[in-house]
Formats: sequence, C-alpha cells, structure tokens
Amino acid sequence: MYNFEYKNPVKIIFGKNTIPKVANEVPKNAKVMFIYGGGSIKRSGVYDTVKNALKNIELVEFGGIEANPHYETCMKAIETVKAEKVEYLLSVGGGSVLDATKFIAAATLYTSGDPWDILAKSSTVEVKKALPIGAVMTLPATGSEMNGNSVITRISTQEKMAFSSPKVMPQFSILDPECVFTLPDKQVANGVVDAFIHVIEQYLTFEVNSPIQDRFAESILTTLIEEGPKVIADRKDYEAAANFMWSATMALNGLIGAGVPQDWASHMIGHELTALHGIDHGRTLAIILPGMMNIKRNNKKDKIIQYGKRIWGITNGTDNEKIDAAIAKTVEFFESLGVPTTLHEYGVTIDTIAKITGRFEKRGFKVGEKADIDFNEVEGILMDRL
Amino acid sequence: MYNFEYKNPVKIIFGKNTIPKVANEVPKNAKVMFIYGGGSIKRSGVYDTVKNALKNIELVEFGGIEANPHYETCMKAIETVKAEKVEYLLSVGGGSVLDATKFIAAATLYTSGDPWDILAKSSTVEVKKALPIGAVMTLPATGSEMNGNSVITRISTQEKMAFSSPKVMPQFSILDPECVFTLPDKQVANGVVDAFIHVIEQYLTFEVNSPIQDRFAESILTTLIEEGPKVIADRKDYEAAANFMWSATMALNGLIGAGVPQDWASHMIGHELTALHGIDHGRTLAIILPGMMNIKRNNKKDKIIQYGKRIWGITNGTDNEKIDAAIAKTVEFFESLGVPTTLHEYGVTIDTIAKITGRFEKRGFKVGEKADIDFNEVEGILMDRL
Repeated sequence: MYNFEYKNPVKIIFGKNTIPKVANEVPKNAKVMFIYGGGSIKRSGVYDTVKNALKNIELVEFGGIEANPHYETCMKAIETVKAEKVEYLLSVGGGSVLDATKFIAAATLYTSGDPWDILAKSSTVEVKKALPIGAVMTLPATGSEMNGNSVITRISTQEKMAFSSPKVMPQFSILDPECVFTLPDKQVANGVVDAFIHVIEQYLTFEVNSPIQDRFAESILTTLIEEGPKVIADRKDYEAAANFMWSATMALNGLIGAGVPQDWASHMIGHELTALHGIDHGRTLAIILPGMMNIKRNNKKDKIIQYGKRIWGITNGTDNEKIDAAIAKTVEFFESLGVPTTLHEYGVTIDTIAKITGRFEKRGFKVGEKADIDFNEVEGILMDRL
Repeated sequence: MYNFEYKNPVKIIFGKNTIPKVANEVPKNAKVMFIYGGGSIKRSGVYDTVKNALKNIELVEFGGIEANPHYETCMKAIETVKAEKVEYLLSVGGGSVLDATKFIAAATLYTSGDPWDILAKSSTVEVKKALPIGAVMTLPATGSEMNGNSVITRISTQEKMAFSSPKVMPQFSILDPECVFTLPDKQVANGVVDAFIHVIEQYLTFEVNSPIQDRFAESILTTLIEEGPKVIADRKDYEAAANFMWSATMALNGLIGAGVPQDWASHMIGHELTALHGIDHGRTLAIILPGMMNIKRNNKKDKIIQYGKRIWGITNGTDNEKIDAAIAKTVEFFESLGVPTTLHEYGVTIDTIAKITGRFEKRGFKVGEKADIDFNEVEGILMDRL
C-alpha cells in the first residue's frame, strides 16, 4: 500500500423521505442559489419538495444546467451569483448539476485570471476558496455527491475538462433512493456503468498489496452487477435503488482509491467522445474500457485475472484466455443493461479516432496508471473498439 | 437498508515516516497538551519523533494514561489543562490514550454538572463542545483514530462506561504502520481480535438488504484473518502491518455500520469483565462472542450462516450445524492468535457471572440488536463460556 492522506467531510443524509431535511442543512440567513437542470425535478416532484422545505429561505433560481454541463452556462450563473450577491449554492439534480455548481462555486471567487484555467490548467491552478455548496442528488452515477471533482464542457471549443478540489466538496448531500423511481432506463444503465468504471479506474491497475481497497472495490462491482439489473427491471424496487445509490457514492468518494495506483485513462479518452459527439459519459466508458483492458493487458495482467476470478468466477485457461474471458464478461454486462460498447454503434467513424489521437499527440503527455499510454496507444485502444 | 446519516471529517495521514507531519497539523500558536501512556512511545522512538517535530510548539506533557484509561487520571489531566490554559490536545499512543484524550476534551468544557454524567448518562447527556484533538496512533485496534467513541473506567466503583460524540473526533490521525514493529505479540493479537469483533458487532445481526455494508464488513474480516497471523509471525512485515492497521480503522469509523442494525452486547458484557478483572478489552470480546453467537443463534441465524459461508467456506450440514461450525472456526481463529476464549482460562469463576448478571438486572434495560437480551440471557451467555 502506498502512503496516503484521506479526508472526506461530506455529510451524507441517506434514505426515504429525506429531501425535506435540506431545511436543516442550508444556512438560515444566507441568500441561496437553487441550481437545477431541465424539467426532470419538476416532473418528479423534487423541485416542489425542495421549494416547500426552503420556503423561508431567500432563493435565487438558476435552471437549465445541461447534461455534460456547459462552461458557457456556468459563466452565466456566475454573473447572476455576483449580481444577486448569492452566498450559498444548492445543487438539486444529478452529477451534471452538481459538477456545474462546483465550478460556479470556485470560479465566482477566482480572481487570478481566466476561470477556464481552473479546468484547462487544473494540474497547476489551486482552488483556494469557493462558495459553500449543498446537494440534493437525484441520480446515482457520478459520485459527485461525496467528492470534490467536477467535469465541464466548453461548447465553443468542444473541450471537456475536469478539476478537483476539497474546497468544492458539498457540505451535505441528501440521497433519497426514491429519486431513482422516475429515471428512464437509459439513465439508470448509464449510472450503473459509470459507477462500475469509477471503481475499475481505481482497481484494475497493478498490485500494491492493498487487500482492503481491492475487496471494497470488488464489493461495489459485485453489488452493481446484482442490483443494476434489478433497478432496470423494476424501477420501484426501493431496496435495489438504495443499494445502487450507495454503490455509486462509495465508488468515487476517495476511499477505494486511497493508497493505490489509479488509471483514469478510459475517462480521459471517453471525455473526447462526449466533447466531439455528445455521447453520454457512462456510454463512452463502456466503449473504451474493453479496449483499455485488451491493449493494456500486460500492465494490468494480475489485476484483470483477479477481477475475472473474484467478480466473474473465471478460473480456467491460460492467462490470456482468462483476460479475454474477463473482457467478454464485462462487455456482456454492459450490453445486458442496453449499453452498446463499440464506436460504430454510436455512428463514430475512423475520422474521429484520428481527431482524438491528434488531441492526445498535441497535449504531449502520457496517461494511465503507469503514465505509458501515448497517442499511438490511444489510437490502438480506439481502433480496438471501432 | 435503513435511512442513515454519515459524516466523518477526520483527516487520515497514513504510511511510513508520516509522524513528523504532526508539525503541519497542530495549530502553530496554541498551547498543546501532549498526552501519552506508559513508556512504550519512549522505547519505540515515537516520543522523540513527535517532540522533535513540535520543538517550536508550547507543549504541556501529560503521561501515564493507563490501558483501559482511568476516570481518575483523566480528572487529574483536566486540572492541568485548566491550570495551564491548554487549547489543543495531542494524543500519542493507542486507543486508550486517545479515548482518555476524548474524555478530557469533552469534560474540560462540560459545565452542566458532574463530568461522570458524560459517561454514566451518555444516552441523555449531549456533549456540546470539546477541545480540539489530534492523534498519532501507535496501535491498530480500537478504531478510535477515526471516530467519536471513548470508553473510560472508574476505578473507585469498578465501572467501565462509554460515550460518543462527533465533537471529540480527532481533527487528524497519523497512522504509521511501522509503529506495529515494536508491539508485543499480545497487543497485536488483542488488536486483531478487537477490530474483528468491531466488525462483527455491526454485521452479525439480521438481514436488512445491505450488500455494500455486508461485503465491506466481510472484506475487513477476511483481511484480518489473512494479515493478523502474518503480523504475529513477522513484526517487521510492513505490508501486513499496514493492511492490519487500515483494517482496524475501517472496522470502526461508522461506515460499515451506516444503515444497518448494530449489536454491541458483546462489548457491554465484555466491559464488565475488564471492570471487575482487568482482562484486556480484546480478550473479553474473544470470550463473549462465541457465547453470543451460540445463545442468539436464532436472532442471528441468517447472518451467521452467511458469515460461515463467505468467511470460512462453510456450506455443508443443517443450519444448526453450520452455525456450530462458524462458532468453532471463530474460536479456533482467536486461539490461533494466542487468545484464550473461556472464562476459566482467565481465572474467572461463577461468582463473577452472578455479579455481572446482577449489574445488568439493576440497570433494567435489554441489549443486542433486537434489544431482547435481558440479565437472564447475559447469564446464559457467560455460563456458555465458563
């Protein structure tokens, strides 16, 4: 196990009928921006529940945050925050709304230059302060409710970039599994795949003797494999929804990644597919991961074999046969959820591969847990999924 | 899964050579009480490492905290805290030192009556404030480094009582696995058993459909079973020490207990054995747990069978045979670590059973995850272990 530091002060309020508790968590005398997306929280009743709980709080509403939230929309929100002297941000929605809220929180108080630098220069720009954030999380997927990560898309340049800071961790996140009841199949499937691959990015690397982290990761994977299909089959299965929701939170709150190598190359390549083609984030991961496992089978050999054995019961064959079987099982699982895993199924052609490869070549750095995936290997991974 | 709230803001600093980082965590201008136990931190060098790191900080030393820390000693520390106007408490040692520090932190600022009430009336007395605490944890066992729990023994009345408050969670805990290198066999064995039974108290209850919590619990149990004997066999095995240390922290930081029923009856009965006979805490648990499993086999049936199957691979026989086998495996594991599991091996006779039963009768409340264990059943559990 590597040395590590871990601190996660987010207060989780989990369970049935917990959304009205937002009234106990939001500061009584602050001017609060109520940030949300499209109409889904209005259709599900969450909008009314929150409004009713906060009827004595001064609210400034800001709706219209997109899936893969736009930098341009966030900048408009920041104008309103400044004009209205907003002091507290409340995100009500899924990971996109919360990611946007995190960027708004940081960029409002960023005075050292262009706010885009928070994303584009995230490795060197430190977020020193941010507006306080609370969250009502309506969609299990990203884990944004219990971390300091945010991913934002700039439409004008078709770029999708991330930043991370403890300053933008929510003070609280309310998770009511009944929010799952009104989600469409596609969002559930995307959420299961997203959470699954968040775990994989922190687990399927190389062995550093970390049995707690490994087993926790496997616990989440196994639970997603069991509970995901139950949620798809019966949207009103509260227990399945609750277990799915808690899995998604645990998948990316820093715990299973503490003290172990991490990959995230599938995410970095996947972001390009979203930026260029608008493919849902979870789906881009379902495309890339099998290629990553195939092309990086030597780097990841011990862990893929462990994954195959402990998650899928694969024990027969040579090492390469076991790896092939583990990839096949992973693809089969994603497809069973209704998520296609090849580029052509999304209408993506070889031209896009050249474009993405070009972007990685231009950036000049290598990715993956061993920082050895260059633009040529990115091309190989994408060609594997054509 | 039950509804739950979870918040754990403790900053964990984990790994080799991390103790000097205490200098970055303790406030620069505060008067700090450096609290420790007997001579072990002096022999191991931890005392010098901490003193050297904090050479520019105004320190008030308070040594001599006992195993099963004494209320009377804590009250002396509180006198010094007040006389010296101490503003910050630094615990350097194991769970006993940190538990004492937590009580000192709360009792110093408790003005509503007798500080003993914080413990004796813990179900009704709320700790509203406490001095800030930091910790250097030298002994993996209690999980005190990442929770708000404290257990204190009053010598004058032979009572051992607990309290819990988020106000006494450490701001940071430094965990250097090399601290394990100098521990005697007995302390390692006690620590493995203590952590193991912390997990059991939150896991071996009844089924509420909580696969993440169950599998995380099983992850910790399996890891303790694998790594505990390695630490006993080779005290300088850094990886085994690190995995043991992280297991002990994860066993009692609230995570696996969130949203599930909890038992804690083995602890409550065990505390009486420590109070009356001074038996090490972990050892009292190793005595009581097998009796608890045997006498409460109906309450705990599904979970004991799951535990037997997933932890020990027990799949053959009737339900009762599986339960018997799971108990036998548990006893065998504790004994393999050199921890006896029956009362007579500690010189405890039937007279003590009567005394403990009398105490439970006098208190008048029932314990266990179904609150159905009365003094008669406490007697049955103890007789089972005579």
